[in-house]
Amino acid sequence: MRLIAFGDSMVAGAGDPDHLGWIGRALAGRRAVTLYNLGVRRETSGDIAARWRAEAMPRLVDDEPMQIVFSFGANDCHIEDGRPRVAQAQSLKNAHAMLTGAAAIAPVLLVGPPPMADPGVSARLEGLNDTLKALAARLKVPFIDVFRPLAADGLFQAEALAWDGAHPGAAGYQRMADLVRVHPAWTAFTLAD
Amino acid sequence: MRLIAFGDSMVAGAGDPDHLGWIGRALAGRRAVTLYNLGVRRETSGDIAARWRAEAMPRLVDDEPMQIVFSFGANDCHIEDGRPRVAQAQSLKNAHAMLTGAAAIAPVLLVGPPPMADPGVSARLEGLNDTLKALAARLKVPFIDVFRPLAADGLFQAEALAWDGAHPGAAGYQRMADLVRVHPAWTAFTLAD
Repeated sequence: MRLIAFGDSMVAGAGDPDHLGWIGRALAGRRAVTLYNLGVRRETSGDIAARWRAEAMPRLVDDEPMQIVFSFGANDCHIEDGRPRVAQAQSLKNAHAMLTGAAAIAPVLLVGPPPMADPGVSARLEGLNDTLKALAARLKVPFIDVFRPLAADGLFQAEALAWDGAHPGAAGYQRMADLVRVHPAWTAFTLAD
Repeated sequence: MRLIAFGDSMVAGAGDPDHLGWIGRALAGRRAVTLYNLGVRRETSGDIAARWRAEAMPRLVDDEPMQIVFSFGANDCHIEDGRPRVAQAQSLKNAHAMLTGAAAIAPVLLVGPPPMADPGVSARLEGLNDTLKALAARLKVPFIDVFRPLAADGLFQAEALAWDGAHPGAAGYQRMADLVRVHPAWTAFTLAD
């Protein structure tokens, strides 16, 4: 099975000393899964929407199951020039375009964003997480909600604060991976292996 | 520092149960390095030459050191319809175009291919490794030769034979990472961190 993951620095695993991120950790021991990690730092939903298709193309094959994961949101909610980099209505449009476009090619999964250390960003992100969850339900795309469990636990944000203010370390990414790994949507999604 | 790695399944780390590959393993503990692993299975030097620039663009930033690594060769040497998928002269042309193109953007490193389990493929690959090494010297691009140490050691190929005939497991990738990690070209290259 080949799994293509599109997203931001959280998908890329920025700050993880082990260079795994939550998705590498969620796939630990799954030797037959080839992971293409296409997370890119600072990218909004609009940036990912603009590139995902071109980057998926050379990675698609007919002779093995392909799966596509998306995870984004934090950069949309960052303030630039007095407003969020992407307004929530536009984030939803971008998500809708990506999820429907990708679902025409392969099974798709949306993983909600983890909480941010900055309270203002994180409050907006919580709202975006809820609207993404509702959109996914409407599109019948499986969704994994990690926001509130990670926020309640606190480790993810504490590690981010202790590092660069945004990205956790090994333990925070592992905590997110543990939530993803046992989620029924993940086990169903990666069953193709 | 941000390191973009272009290559084939060996760069992607196919078959590594830990989803690190040699490059993730070579960067273990280097938390400030963001790794963009853009290895793609089955790709020849021609396939990589066709996409590397478009995929580098969204990942380049001005405010942090960028480095670009290439590693390829095995798929060029596979036989299809009675001949290698890419003739050696064309492999060199592709390598020349990538190395000079990327060197205009960021510091570049070429890591030679690891040996293959198939003796015929591996014999051609050994020749390609030598010509890539000579090309890199001519272009003053640092080169890390892993072919003969890995072939002499045998573990990389033994693990590949025990799995899918091409890709090693954790120990083989770690062996390659250990060769890369201590190489002066690697330490100089990743010093920007």
